[in-house]
Amino acid sequence: MISVGIVGGTGYTGVELLRLLLRHPKAQVRVLTSRTEAGRRVSDMFPSLRGHTDLEFSDLDLNALKQCDVVFFATPHGVAMQHAEELITTGTKLIDLAADFRLQNLAEFEKWYGMQHSCPSVLADSVYGLTELNRDKIKNAQVIGNPGCYPTTVQLGLAPLLKDQHNLINTQSIIIDAKSGVSGAGRKASLGMIYSENADNFKAYGVAGHRHHPEIVEALENISGAKGQFSQLIFVPHLVPMIRGMLSTIYVDLTEQAQQINLQALYESFYENERFVDVMPANSSPETRSVRGANELRIALYQPQPNKLIVLVAQDNLVKGAAGQAIQNMNLMFNFDEAAGLEGIGLLP
Amino acid sequence: MISVGIVGGTGYTGVELLRLLLRHPKAQVRVLTSRTEAGRRVSDMFPSLRGHTDLEFSDLDLNALKQCDVVFFATPHGVAMQHAEELITTGTKLIDLAADFRLQNLAEFEKWYGMQHSCPSVLADSVYGLTELNRDKIKNAQVIGNPGCYPTTVQLGLAPLLKDQHNLINTQSIIIDAKSGVSGAGRKASLGMIYSENADNFKAYGVAGHRHHPEIVEALENISGAKGQFSQLIFVPHLVPMIRGMLSTIYVDLTEQAQQINLQALYESFYENERFVDVMPANSSPETRSVRGANELRIALYQPQPNKLIVLVAQDNLVKGAAGQAIQNMNLMFNFDEAAGLEGIGLLP
Amino acid sequence: MISVGIVGGTGYTGVELLRLLLRHPKAQVRVLTSRTEAGRRVSDMFPSLRGHTDLEFSDLDLNALKQCDVVFFATPHGVAMQHAEELITTGTKLIDLAADFRLQNLAEFEKWYGMQHSCPSVLADSVYGLTELNRDKIKNAQVIGNPGCYPTTVQLGLAPLLKDQHNLINTQSIIIDAKSGVSGAGRKASLGMIYSENADNFKAYGVAGHRHHPEIVEALENISGAKGQFSQLIFVPHLVPMIRGMLSTIYVDLTEQAQQINLQALYESFYENERFVDVMPANSSPETRSVRGANELRIALYQPQPNKLIVLVAQDNLVKGAAGQAIQNMNLMFNFDEAAGLEGIGLLP
Amino acid sequence: MISVGIVGGTGYTGVELLRLLLRHPKAQVRVLTSRTEAGRRVSDMFPSLRGHTDLEFSDLDLNALKQCDVVFFATPHGVAMQHAEELITTGTKLIDLAADFRLQNLAEFEKWYGMQHSCPSVLADSVYGLTELNRDKIKNAQVIGNPGCYPTTVQLGLAPLLKDQHNLINTQSIIIDAKSGVSGAGRKASLGMIYSENADNFKAYGVAGHRHHPEIVEALENISGAKGQFSQLIFVPHLVPMIRGMLSTIYVDLTEQAQQINLQALYESFYENERFVDVMPANSSPETRSVRGANELRIALYQPQPNKLIVLVAQDNLVKGAAGQAIQNMNLMFNFDEAAGLEGIGLLP
Repeated sequence: MISVGIVGGTGYTGVELLRLLLRHPKAQVRVLTSRTEAGRRVSDMFPSLRGHTDLEFSDLDLNALKQCDVVFFATPHGVAMQHAEELITTGTKLIDLAADFRLQNLAEFEKWYGMQHSCPSVLADSVYGLTELNRDKIKNAQVIGNPGCYPTTVQLGLAPLLKDQHNLINTQSIIIDAKSGVSGAGRKASLGMIYSENADNFKAYGVAGHRHHPEIVEALENISGAKGQFSQLIFVPHLVPMIRGMLSTIYVDLTEQAQQINLQALYESFYENERFVDVMPANSSPETRSVRGANELRIALYQPQPNKLIVLVAQDNLVKGAAGQAIQNMNLMFNFDEAAGLEGIGLLP
Repeated sequence: MISVGIVGGTGYTGVELLRLLLRHPKAQVRVLTSRTEAGRRVSDMFPSLRGHTDLEFSDLDLNALKQCDVVFFATPHGVAMQHAEELITTGTKLIDLAADFRLQNLAEFEKWYGMQHSCPSVLADSVYGLTELNRDKIKNAQVIGNPGCYPTTVQLGLAPLLKDQHNLINTQSIIIDAKSGVSGAGRKASLGMIYSENADNFKAYGVAGHRHHPEIVEALENISGAKGQFSQLIFVPHLVPMIRGMLSTIYVDLTEQAQQINLQALYESFYENERFVDVMPANSSPETRSVRGANELRIALYQPQPNKLIVLVAQDNLVKGAAGQAIQNMNLMFNFDEAAGLEGIGLLP
Repeated sequence: MISVGIVGGTGYTGVELLRLLLRHPKAQVRVLTSRTEAGRRVSDMFPSLRGHTDLEFSDLDLNALKQCDVVFFATPHGVAMQHAEELITTGTKLIDLAADFRLQNLAEFEKWYGMQHSCPSVLADSVYGLTELNRDKIKNAQVIGNPGCYPTTVQLGLAPLLKDQHNLINTQSIIIDAKSGVSGAGRKASLGMIYSENADNFKAYGVAGHRHHPEIVEALENISGAKGQFSQLIFVPHLVPMIRGMLSTIYVDLTEQAQQINLQALYESFYENERFVDVMPANSSPETRSVRGANELRIALYQPQPNKLIVLVAQDNLVKGAAGQAIQNMNLMFNFDEAAGLEGIGLLP
Repeated sequence: MISVGIVGGTGYTGVELLRLLLRHPKAQVRVLTSRTEAGRRVSDMFPSLRGHTDLEFSDLDLNALKQCDVVFFATPHGVAMQHAEELITTGTKLIDLAADFRLQNLAEFEKWYGMQHSCPSVLADSVYGLTELNRDKIKNAQVIGNPGCYPTTVQLGLAPLLKDQHNLINTQSIIIDAKSGVSGAGRKASLGMIYSENADNFKAYGVAGHRHHPEIVEALENISGAKGQFSQLIFVPHLVPMIRGMLSTIYVDLTEQAQQINLQALYESFYENERFVDVMPANSSPETRSVRGANELRIALYQPQPNKLIVLVAQDNLVKGAAGQAIQNMNLMFNFDEAAGLEGIGLLP
């Protein structure tokens, strides 16, 4: 049984970590911090946890956190990097669910997040936690930058076309039309997020630029091993009036070479041994409700013309897109069964 | 054509007033104020108004408002009463959609709204704007306290049993189980109002006490003409995951006398000439979507036992429960057709 | 490991049984029948189950079912009773999630369900499966009538006032204002259930009479041990635009005797050892999302006046209100930990 | 005052026609037919119409319809064409809201709608009712094929780039990622449309082929005046958990020539005199709720790279995408103000 700390337990990724970790067979949450709620029982704030834990929020105390085997940061961008250097000195592992350890490109980080990185050397040693693609590095990492929700769908949606492949797609004409439930924006008191502004409504947002864009580009470069090939990538996120769920519709131009290949078989083979990635049969349409609350990601392919591929990718943004994948990484880092605590079935209806 | 001012145009009652008044045949909105948005075009904030108005928000300027024939206050509680005395000196009429002129009982006002009333003499001369019940007084009023949304359903739901009636119901055992869409809580950046906290969820709120309770009691006393008879009334509001709409389910104990009467006929007769109150046939169930966007209120009756009556009352909380009724009152005050600007049909589906 | 059969696996209680049983440590679903889908993989119909089971629907085959240790009927009313007599001859236990074994009063059954009961003797020996109240009988039962969703909230909401108590409440003036998510109506192709008729809408239904009314009355009589005392009970269900969740707001008149008692303490003591019933602190408001997907029921009390009690009861209609309670009963019948397979935490947000 | 008939008044386009026509200053609905509801008052089925009309459904009677000046068919595909020939003999005009008169290509019609066209000669004389693009022809038409909802967004979204333009875009690489509220699927009792299958869920559908695809292609060919140029167009519709609203996100490759042009200015100029098409300022994001219930379509442009254009187009699928545009066409056909009956402001929130 490892001991776990969570910094920032009042947001949706925080409470989702709790939902999953409180039922984890090998991990126990010992420390739970909040700037604003110290002394309050977490189940008073999130009544779904009543009967499942007596944990109280505490102030952020690095000494307490250093006694944990692993600490999750479910905080706003910029918090984890302030504490990372100190925290890891005594061997504690760190998994950041914000963006502090996602981008190796410091200039891009500063540009999109509006702050300088405070511990570039920790960043340099950190590992990007897209589990299925970086499994070996994650096992030995001390610091993990857990991927953004949109980038998770894009990477797993395109990896079979890019990893160890050459010349299957035109990397410069990729279009990602992505849709997310409202919980993806977090738990914040802002006018744009209130019920009556979002229910029965649909819109694009961040069309002129979204922070996940540079993360997607850097990640795809790492998968394909070639820099600069995704500079023309288009990414348009949209907001869906639902709580959880994310669907990315990805449009790809296939090369002549790819047109000789059974892409459905390629995907099935690529993910053959993955417990959390489901390549659905031809002509399927992954619905977000099929993964509600589950650490699963479902993919379906359509080839409307010989040279065009449509990749549909669905996940729960809070699970495989955030807390679930973070625990999947923790499982690897501590040599647990990768699926420990993550085998729950999605809630349908 | 009268000229209209709206103070506080950035909330939901403000934008609803605009939606209705911009299409009103005899009224023109000339002034629209906002503490925070002065200089901004209202259609930039509410894109549904693009193409319908070039109005800009301005700072609150009493001189400008005094040149209007009527000014609506769609502000938080306590704002209208600060300006009322000055505003009405030159003949401008005032319709407050907040609570400043709803309660004649000053002690109750202070208790529930946490502030002293700043112009009791204006309050004393003001008229409570439940149109159907106070029509004559409204016609001659200079200041109107527009009713709360819940109190509107309760008064119109019970008036036929109380007005000019004696001894039809046990006034001390009335139970009001009320349900409202989320827009009833206004347009505020608060954590409790965000989408992911309200969607796919149902709860009671304000069970220990809600500001509309004293308003309901005072109003029912005025209708029945007897003080103190409603001190045991129970009122429990609930929050429904929908934008607009309100349904009150009212439980009443009937006297022996009432059991001799055809109550369906009583209601139908009572509202026979009312354009905006619809007594539905026996065994109907008024749905909130049947009045979505419309200045209508629908009532249905059930008598499960000889001595029990269930009154179901549905309205759109923003229309008949707020902006629509305010305009209905304005129409009376200026001797317009009472239905002017209010004849739109509800949006279904 | 016991072997389990499910008859009627294409409805929402069927898929919810699967979601829970596929993760149950001591039960394995071996047979899954459907009139219409025989031969189809259940995960083709419910993609949330992909990766969790290879089960296929089969035709209803009593011989196959008789080899199961227990069979759940997640069928329309009237199906279980056709097969019960035969099924139990060889010792198989039966848990019916429809109404066939809920009402001992045959006349009421015929009146409300429009059919004659086909096996009154099995009915006579069956046990009503409100777990917390009938635990001992359930342990030894062969046939269980699993309670309706509304009746579960009412019984657990009122039991502390009725069981082994005399004269705490006026049993003739109970009012139950109940609200349910749409999944409570099942998975049927009917116009009244389609999205655009229910979203952003609220209404009462079944006001003139609902099948759960006689079940509530019979059950409360059994709890209190007195017949005829609930004949005036009022029950009004409403439909909430959400998928899962149920809240009952129950209004009770307290006797003089009850006014001498700390009712909050009474409830807390009554449910002290119950893992799935949560008496919340004073002034709480149980939200349906706090039990979304969880086998939990939360209760809160308000005493607005000395002689009035408001009981708020929330549950997930598909879990504690149906499939979860059915499994809780199964656990008792096979001497498993009562919580086996039911410890999942609700999905919030 | 013209007299109007509506065939098929029980679907969502039927009730939306009624909502708009009952408030139209120059049209009166005289006949309303339904196969299944003859003799029933329309306000019994759609309570939002209570107080606004006493109309009853009648059986389809061609003689009665022939006495109308115009008849709308709000029926399934294939109904209007059965009656068109007979109906128009005496001068009655016909506006079909289904697909019978949308496609001039008979082979495509048969392929996608699974039926032979029964009156090709009427079809040949009919006019495609995309109002803004075919205004002159519509004025003189006797039979109108009212456009599909998706095709309306695509045509108005792309017309400025295609009409009287040469070589602004690569017509073969257009990608349309479209999203619709559930009412777009009509009012039908089908399992796939029920609330609990659609709420809190998002998915693509019809990816392998949607009936609006050939309509889009034929219409774009007509706008651009060149056949065969859109054969590679990609169209992927998605289903949004909301009642009304449609957003199309259209991805276009710009030619060198187009990169020399201010496309924002081109669009603004193109739609300068259109009352129902709103080109929003740069960096806007049209929300579907900004047109809820209104006959408006809003467009916004983004140019993420010199050679890429993203066109966002929002409308209410039941208004500008169906009933509203049909009435806009009627207004033209009878020489009314084009906006008569269509000036209502959208319902926000």
